[in-house]
Parts: sequence; C-alpha cells; structure tokens
Amino acid sequence: MKKVAIVGVGQTKFGKRSDASIREIAFEAFKEAVEDAGIMRGEIDASIVCSATHYDKQRTPAGVIAEYLGLNPQPTFNVEAICASSGVGLRNAWALISSGLHDIVAIIGFQKMTELKSDEVQDVMCRAGDVMWESPFGPTMPAYFAMYANAHMNKYGTKEEQLAKVAVKNHFYGAKNPKAMFQKEVTVQDVLKSRPIASPLKQFDCCANSDGAACLILTSEDKARKITDTPVWIAGLGLGSSPMSLTGRGTDLTSFGCAVEAAKQAYKMAGITATDVDVAEVHDCFTITEIINYEDLGFCPRGQGGKFVEEEQTYIGGKFPVNVDGGLLAKGHPVGATGASQIRTLVQQLRGEAGETQVKGAEIALAHNLGGIGMYCAVTILRR
Amino acid sequence: MKKVAIVGVGQTKFGKRSDASIREIAFEAFKEAVEDAGIMRGEIDASIVCSATHYDKQRTPAGVIAEYLGLNPQPTFNVEAICASSGVGLRNAWALISSGLHDIVAIIGFQKMTELKSDEVQDVMCRAGDVMWESPFGPTMPAYFAMYANAHMNKYGTKEEQLAKVAVKNHFYGAKNPKAMFQKEVTVQDVLKSRPIASPLKQFDCCANSDGAACLILTSEDKARKITDTPVWIAGLGLGSSPMSLTGRGTDLTSFGCAVEAAKQAYKMAGITATDVDVAEVHDCFTITEIINYEDLGFCPRGQGGKFVEEEQTYIGGKFPVNVDGGLLAKGHPVGATGASQIRTLVQQLRGEAGETQVKGAEIALAHNLGGIGMYCAVTILRR
Repeated sequence: MKKVAIVGVGQTKFGKRSDASIREIAFEAFKEAVEDAGIMRGEIDASIVCSATHYDKQRTPAGVIAEYLGLNPQPTFNVEAICASSGVGLRNAWALISSGLHDIVAIIGFQKMTELKSDEVQDVMCRAGDVMWESPFGPTMPAYFAMYANAHMNKYGTKEEQLAKVAVKNHFYGAKNPKAMFQKEVTVQDVLKSRPIASPLKQFDCCANSDGAACLILTSEDKARKITDTPVWIAGLGLGSSPMSLTGRGTDLTSFGCAVEAAKQAYKMAGITATDVDVAEVHDCFTITEIINYEDLGFCPRGQGGKFVEEEQTYIGGKFPVNVDGGLLAKGHPVGATGASQIRTLVQQLRGEAGETQVKGAEIALAHNLGGIGMYCAVTILRR
Repeated sequence: MKKVAIVGVGQTKFGKRSDASIREIAFEAFKEAVEDAGIMRGEIDASIVCSATHYDKQRTPAGVIAEYLGLNPQPTFNVEAICASSGVGLRNAWALISSGLHDIVAIIGFQKMTELKSDEVQDVMCRAGDVMWESPFGPTMPAYFAMYANAHMNKYGTKEEQLAKVAVKNHFYGAKNPKAMFQKEVTVQDVLKSRPIASPLKQFDCCANSDGAACLILTSEDKARKITDTPVWIAGLGLGSSPMSLTGRGTDLTSFGCAVEAAKQAYKMAGITATDVDVAEVHDCFTITEIINYEDLGFCPRGQGGKFVEEEQTYIGGKFPVNVDGGLLAKGHPVGATGASQIRTLVQQLRGEAGETQVKGAEIALAHNLGGIGMYCAVTILRR
C-alpha cells in the first residue's frame, strides 16, 4: 500500500459561533490548514466534507462549502458517520490517495449545533438511534451512555468519583488549549455536584453541543517529501461497526464492539500493539466513554479503566497520555469536526509543536473516534 | 492502479413501496446482489450506504442497514452527494479496494421518498440548493432545470417537441423493464399535453419521487477471477463539482461544468473517447438534462442534443443507445439508489443479459450520475 501523509492541519475555536455560517467556519479551518501545509488552494485534487446531518437546514453541505472555498470543479462529496464523520472521511481520503487516484486531498469536518433550541437538538440526536424500534421510546444520548455507565459500575465496581476524574483531567488540559470551548479547570467535587442529566451522569460528565470546524491536508508520499520536512504518516486505519440498536448488542453494555474491531484492524496495519502508543485522543463524549475506550484500546485491562484514570495514568507522565487537548468534554464536540480535530492535535504532538502539553519524544499517536451510540468507530494510528 | 471488478448487482422494483421500510428495501437489493455474485454475506469486508438525507426521520442509515443486513462488525458508513450518492459511493469503494485495504465491498443505495407529503418533499428538495442565498427565494427543482431548458432553447433553438422525445424514448424502454416505476409508453402529444410544472417543463418532462434500492458487489481482481467468469471492470472514474449557487455558474446555463469535468477525467483514466462508448445510462432527472448530458459527454456537438434525440440516435440501433432501462423518467428516481441502478443496468448489458433491450456486442459502457442542481457529477466507465 502506498504511504499517505498529513501535511497540514487547521481548526477554528470550538464553542458558540453565532458569528459565522457553516461555510465561514469551514473556511477558517481550511485557510489555517492550507497555510500550515504551505500549498496553494489550486493544488488540491479533491475535498471530502464530513458532518452529521439535520443540525441545520442545509442539505449536502459539500456543495456550498466547495463553492465558498473555491474548490470547484474538483471532486467533492459528503461522508457521514455521525460523531465519527471526519475519522471516516480521513480513511476515505487515505484510500483515494493510496490507490493513486489523487495526490492532495482536503478533509473538512464541521458542525453548527448551538443554533437549534435544546429540545430540537434532543430530537435530532435521538434520531441517530433506530427510529423504528428505539428512539420513539425516548432514550436521549446521555440516557444511552448512562446505561453503559451503570453496566460498568455494576460489573466492575467503577465509581462516580472515577468518572469525575476523567472530566477533571480533560478540563485541566482544556484550560491550556486556546481553541477549547471551556478553558477552566474543575474539581471532582464540581463534577459530582453538577446538575444530574441521566443517572449516574451529571453535567460535567457530558460534552456540550458546540460549533466548529477542523481541516486536514493529506498527500501522497512524493508530494509530502516536496512540501514539508515534518510529514506525519498514516500508519494504521481501522473502522468497525456495531448494531445500532442496544437490543442487537446483547446484554453486556461495558464495551463498544466497533471500537475493539477498529483497534484490532489499526494495530495490525501499523504493526504495533497498544503499548507502542505514545499519545492518544479518544472519544470522550461522556466520562464513561473514555473509561471504556481505555479498555477497548488495550491501554489497561478490562474493568480497570476507572482505576487507571484514578491513578492518573492518562495524564502526561502516566502510561498513556490521553486527550491532552481537553478532549470532547472541554474542547467541545461539534460532531463532524471532532475526528479531524483529534488528528490535528496528534499531528502537532508528533511534530513537537504542542507547547505546554507536549508529550516529549512522541513518535506514535492514536485517534479513536466513535459514532453515534457506538455503532461506528474509526481508529487511526499516526507515526512521525 | 489495481483493477476492480463488479461481480454482483441487485435492485428492488422502483415505485411506491409503502409495504417496506428502508432496511427492508436495502435487504431486497442486497440479497439479489449477493446471490448474483454467488458469495456469502460473511465474505464482505465493508459496506457503503449511499442516500440523500432528510427524506425520512432516520439519520445515519448505515447504522440500521448494516445491522439488518448482518454486516457488523465490518466497516460501514454513509456517502452522500444527493442524486449522485451511489455513483460517488462506487468511486469510494473502488479506492478502498484498489488501495489494497479491502477485497470485497458492497454498495447499497436507497431512498424512500413517497411517504412525505408533496409540500414536505418540495421543502426537502429545495434545501439541496443554497439555503442562505437561494432556496429561501423559492426555486423548486423543476424551476432550476426549467432555467436550463429555457437557456438551451434560447441559445440553440431546442424545441419542446425535442424535449418530449426524450420522455417518449425512455418510457418506450421503461415499458420493457419489469423493475421500472412506469411501464407504459407515451407519445410526444402525451408529453406536450401533460400538466405544466415549470415552463417549458411539463409532467412527463420530470421524473417522479420514488422508493427503491440498488446494490453492487465490488471486488479486487484476484477475488473476481475466483468468483465469476463474467467480471465487469471499472475502467474509468470521474467526479466533478460545480458551484451550488446558480449565481456562481455564470450566465450560460446550457451545460453542467461538473459533468464536463467528470467525463474528461473518466475518459482519460479509461483511455477512451466518447465514440468508444457502446451503451450509456445518463441522469435524465428532466428531459432537458438528458439533452445537455449528450453534449457534456461528447455524444453529439454542443447545441445538437435536441436534434440528436429527434433523429433517434440514442435508441438502440442509433449512435449511442442511452437509458435503455427507462432512465430516471420511466424507471423512477429514488435518489440514493439511482447511481447503483444505472451501473446494474450496464453490468447486465456488458454480460449480455439484457434480453429484449440488449445492445448487441456491447463492450464499453458509461454511467453519468448528476447530483442536486448539478453541483456533483460522477461518470463511470465499465468494460467487459
């Protein structure tokens, strides 16, 4: 398989962006990525627009975005896998380049979620579940993940304080990220005392609806060598799926099958094991998700995720630094942008450009991007 | 680039399908394709679900469809380019196989459009245009294409009778296709006397909202040689884009820039010219579209499309047989399924299995799949 590199990354500030339309936030991220790569817009062979649907009135956003970014008449289209949209988009871009069809592909992930009213957002989110057999009965996103939290607590004795520790860590790093939605540290007590959402999950256990965009420029090996001295290579790609319905997942809600499958594929392709990973971004849509992710990725034994974060093994200096940009919980989660934003953070880590949150000597990085209620998971492994 | 083949095709009947949910029509098409390929479901490495959004409440349909088809935990995701969704999906599947990542990929295109009320469908369709600057001012899909019709008539003297001839031809072939939505021939007079929609387009100048699904099984060359004696090879792939806004397209609305670009790419990759094409499926969402498509693809000189169909050059026996399965006008246009359905027809042609509508000795086939108001176009060239 021909090698593919990431040579440019960009991201808007995440948060409330009522000042800008979707095309404008896409442009902000795109401009930064193109400048980072040091290429001209006209050199881009194709673009892939990644977002979840129904958060705004605009259908088929690649149409407006490619026009606004000046990318016609080159190929463009939309890839969607809910919260994993841009993780999946990256895999498609890799294939379009590795196959020899294109040399330079731009991935643009975005979402604007804050303009919908709270009840409208809930309605939209629920319809990422099975609308025939499940979502009409009322499960919201926090309710789905609360079931996982309860199952994990019952089976392994995971504690609310351990869940809270995930939020504390990610807000600690979010406070150091100028592009994060929330830039203030929180304590375990802050988390435990925050407003109940779906027991045992409280407000600080949940990520917030956000606006934002992120962009990645991928190239063939030849192009990368010409463009930059610091290419970051895509070494492993995994994509797994799980039944959309909870019913279809059996009785054990303590792991995401799609993540286990994706990790297996990605480690195999990269020829590494979990222990080789120097820094990771994982999909912490809820605190419980991050704990399960540690286990699904093999960062710690099954059932030990709560203890692992309690021991601060996922801080910088621990065994596996995770979400050192604040993760979804502090950085924000504009769903279509999240996968690309994770990769941006890791590219900066592998280039040694992460400043205060740099993991020293990081050579191998892993991104874990979960979709919806855990029916898609994209795992990407990057190498310096 | 490694060769990729199509080894299995399937399609539901197109039309009103209030008897079946989206997962059920997807299954019908999938079952037929898997049986046609002679493979087992478990051999499929990945699936790509292709559909336009907002026609039903279910977001992220790959989740429900992969579960219902028993395709977990393999990779699955959604590709969207409005009416060109499955044409674009095919290109992604090609890349995933040609890059060496997968051996067997299923493409499942579907749409259920008839359950929405007529005004709801109009609202949804309009939002495939620019919702900030254009669709709030009221252009419907027929209105957009009527502007192209008027421009073509003004510039080249194209006549309403010539537009009507496209409908007559496609209904002539639709009457021979048991899976077509409309299976009755019409006359030029029937078309001219049909209900005005957006002048000069009348009811028979417009395709109908439809339900249906189509499925393709693609494989690597090695797998194809093992599975079948009649592989159909993907020889050329093109994908172009145009500005979504009409404003962005300049003053000449007599050609689709995205189609010209896509055709150029596809002919180059296949190493052929238009004259080598033996049979074609082109995107006749409206009669005027088919006339412009002839010109964009180089089947006839610019401005001569009306005369070309009037002379019956696109019937079997003419220079370029086009839409011999009835096209969108007679077969129906469940938007996400259309691209895959076009390929299904052409695969049957290249295998010599098209019965009464067989183009004798067909060796090279072309599919032209336009998205939305003409902001995406996928052109695919197949070889026996």
